[in-house]
Parts: sequence; C-alpha cells; structure tokens
Amino acid sequence: MENLYVIKIGGNIVDNPSLLTICLQAFSKVKGQAILVHGGGKLATQVANSLGIVQQMVEGRRITDAETLKVVTMVYAGYINKNIVAQLQSMGENAMGLSGADGNLIKAHKRIGSQIDYGFVGDIDEVNSAFIQQQLLNNTKLVIAPITHDGAGQLLNTNADTIAQFIATAMSGLYKVHLVYGFEKEGVLVDVNNEASVISSINNITYSQLKQDKVIFEGMIPKIDNAFLALNSGVQSVIIGKAEKLDELMNGTAGTTIIK
Amino acid sequence: MENLYVIKIGGNIVDNPSLLTICLQAFSKVKGQAILVHGGGKLATQVANSLGIVQQMVEGRRITDAETLKVVTMVYAGYINKNIVAQLQSMGENAMGLSGADGNLIKAHKRIGSQIDYGFVGDIDEVNSAFIQQQLLNNTKLVIAPITHDGAGQLLNTNADTIAQFIATAMSGLYKVHLVYGFEKEGVLVDVNNEASVISSINNITYSQLKQDKVIFEGMIPKIDNAFLALNSGVQSVIIGKAEKLDELMNGTAGTTIIK
Repeated sequence: MENLYVIKIGGNIVDNPSLLTICLQAFSKVKGQAILVHGGGKLATQVANSLGIVQQMVEGRRITDAETLKVVTMVYAGYINKNIVAQLQSMGENAMGLSGADGNLIKAHKRIGSQIDYGFVGDIDEVNSAFIQQQLLNNTKLVIAPITHDGAGQLLNTNADTIAQFIATAMSGLYKVHLVYGFEKEGVLVDVNNEASVISSINNITYSQLKQDKVIFEGMIPKIDNAFLALNSGVQSVIIGKAEKLDELMNGTAGTTIIK
Repeated sequence: MENLYVIKIGGNIVDNPSLLTICLQAFSKVKGQAILVHGGGKLATQVANSLGIVQQMVEGRRITDAETLKVVTMVYAGYINKNIVAQLQSMGENAMGLSGADGNLIKAHKRIGSQIDYGFVGDIDEVNSAFIQQQLLNNTKLVIAPITHDGAGQLLNTNADTIAQFIATAMSGLYKVHLVYGFEKEGVLVDVNNEASVISSINNITYSQLKQDKVIFEGMIPKIDNAFLALNSGVQSVIIGKAEKLDELMNGTAGTTIIK
C-alpha cells in the first residue's frame, strides 16, 4: 500500500505567517499522498470580537452559537483554507481546499447528550473515504477546514484533531496512514521544561512504563490514548512534534513517533 | 456531447434565503452536469462595515483593498459557498464548493493598465477545464465562489458573470454548454416596465433589428454582446431570466434564450 500522510496543524501555526509558510513548504514536498487538516487560530476570535459577537464560554469551553458558527465558517473554510491553498499552488503543488460539506466529505451530528449545550458543534459520524481516494488519485493534495455538515443543511464546528484522527482511520484500509500532529512542542518530553528531552519513540510497552514512572501525565495522556486508538484502528504510526519541523517529523529525525 | 449547464446567480438571490432555496432546488434537479457560480450579495458589505473597513468607491466601482479582499474571501468562499453546498447535500445532491485557487481552477492576474487601481481584482487568464471535467465525471455538481488566484499565492476578487462566461467557454469543447444568467428580471424585455414583455428568443439577425429599433439599449447591450461572444466561442445557448425560475429557464418556458 502507498503511504498517506494526514497532517494536522494547529491555530498557533495558522496565526503565524512565517511558520505557516515553512510548514506548507514541507507539506508541498511530501512524496506521495498528503492531507492537511488545519485548525482555527485567533483570527476567528478577532473577527467575532470586531463584529460584537460575545464569545460564550462554559467551563472553559467555547460555545458555538449561530453567529459564532457564521464567523468560523467564514474564517476557517474561507479565509484560512483558501489562503493555504493559494500558497500551496504558488509552491507548484496542486491543492484543493474542502470543508466537510464538500463532496459529503465528513458527515456529523450536532452534539447531543452532553450536560453542556455546545451549540453548533458536530461529532463525526462518517468520513467519505471513496471521495478522498478519488481526489488523491488525481494527485491533488487536500486541505481540510474544521467545518462539517449534518446532511440536512446544517454546518457544524468540529475539532480539527478529531477530524484528522477520523480521516486517518477511515483511510487506513486504503493506504499506509501516518498521522502527524504538529503542535508547539518538540514532541513528548521527559522533562516538560526541556525541549531537548524528546522521547523519540513510544509503543504499548514503553507507554505503560512511562505512565507508571509519571513521565507522561495529565494533558498528554488523552493525546497518546487517542494515538493508540488510531493505531488499533489501522493507522500505521502517529507522530507528534513541532509543526514547523514537518519535514523532520515525517522522516523520523524529530518529534515522537508512536507505534503499536 | 452531453449537456452542461453553467448557471450564475447574483447577489440578490444569495441575499434572500427563500429565493436561494427555490433556486437550489431547481439546480439540484438538473439532469446531467451542472456548475453554479454565485455572486456576493450584501453580506460582504455588512461584514466590512461591521469590521470598520471603509469601502472605497471610485467612479461608482468598488475597490478591493487588502482588508476588503479578506472579507470577500471569508464571505464568498466561506460562508456563502459552504452554506449553498450544505443545502444541496440536504437535497440529496452531491456538490463541492470551490474557489479559483482550488485545483488551480481559475488563474487570473491582478488588473493592470487600467486608469483606476481596482486593488486585488483579478482578470482571468485560464480555466482548468480538465480538472472541472474530472470532477463532473464523479457526478458532483460544482459550486464556484468568485475568488480567483494568480498562481503566486495571491487571491483575487473576480466578477461572477465573467467567471461563468469563461467557464462556459472553456468547457464548450467537451460539452454542449448552456450558460444561464439568473437575475432579478424575467429576461430581455420589450418594455422595461412590463415583466410580461419578455423576448423569448434572440439571434444575430433579430438582435441587430432590436438594437436598430432601440428595443435593446444601454445596460442590456454589453450583456447581450457578451452572450454572443460566448456563442461565437462555442457555447450552445445563453439564457437570461429570473433566477428563481431556473427550472423554466432551462426548459425554455421562461426567460430569453440567445442563440447564434
């Protein structure tokens, strides 16, 4: 099977034009198939504030009301997505930007059964893997905005990490999928204050040991648990590290690679 | 050759949710291949005003400065485009929304040589007809936002009428193309104040006569001249009429059909 890289870059990269360019240059050089899932960044909050839309927060989580959904649709699927695509085109790489509504790429439903009403937030039901494969076969790199739809005309705001994971899992029957999470740290660190202390590789056995030794704790545990979920669903490897080192993350010279 | 309908709907339809739905229902029922090109509408102006972006007008024409480009990219390629796609999906029609940057669909250059500096406004160089055909072969209807790119990373604001005409012309070697302009009037009227006075068909010969008799004058002349340009470049027919009567425009029971 051919390799497919599903790469998620977060808001901190999207917010920083020079880091974004470095990241897109690495993305444009990926040999073989690649999908970029981008997060939101501060622009949506800025636009919402400028438009006088009050951001409701409940227990530290943002609520996507109708007006906020309008803003994230504009900013994520419009401004950010199209600027990334235009930049990739300028690097000689054919790219296509999509939301989850386009080609019925990602179907979701409005989150239910939660104690908090998150508003227009979507939990994913299905990824259209046949459609993705079709587009990849045309040698087009895909750039995906974190907006999904419910099939009944409603757009929904959906977490970009989750989208990347669902896409990686859905494509794992067709490709050797490598799921790359680009974030602000070098990888999983032995010492959170020392960026040089990257654990280069984690597997099931070393993970148990690292948890037992309290090297891995708190916020990192759900991230790695999710990585193992993806691996157990057929994804080949999950790589976590600094987004602007995408090149090195993919060739294994930077970041943390998680395998089964 | 198979029929392909290239349908342009203007801002007045985009601004009116119930008219838009009527229009999309008709679009979703098109037998065979179809492309929808949508204009902007008032939302971009509203968003720009709310964000405190002063709209510069020179000789009655809007100037697309950097901030305005940001807004139209958000509103046209994000909000309007994705909501149209989600609505078409809810009608059981697989649709994909694209800007001119996606799949290198429409390459343009920043307008030059004009006495007025229109800012980030693009004049079209090339339509990627192979890419469009590929997507249509997947039985996907395309929804195109009036944003193009220059291939060097710059997005550009481009007139939706012009985009529709260029796409129609570019596809005319591959399909029997019918170019439909949905606007606020019933069609070309004998008496501008009487919506019942539609001229159902115009050809080269009757056009000369209508101009000579001053039935067609002023603003309608460049529209029909452009229609003949498209017809002379291989487009099969150009149909002008009320956007919400899209169904009837396509079966020839409403609007004005212009043929060679």
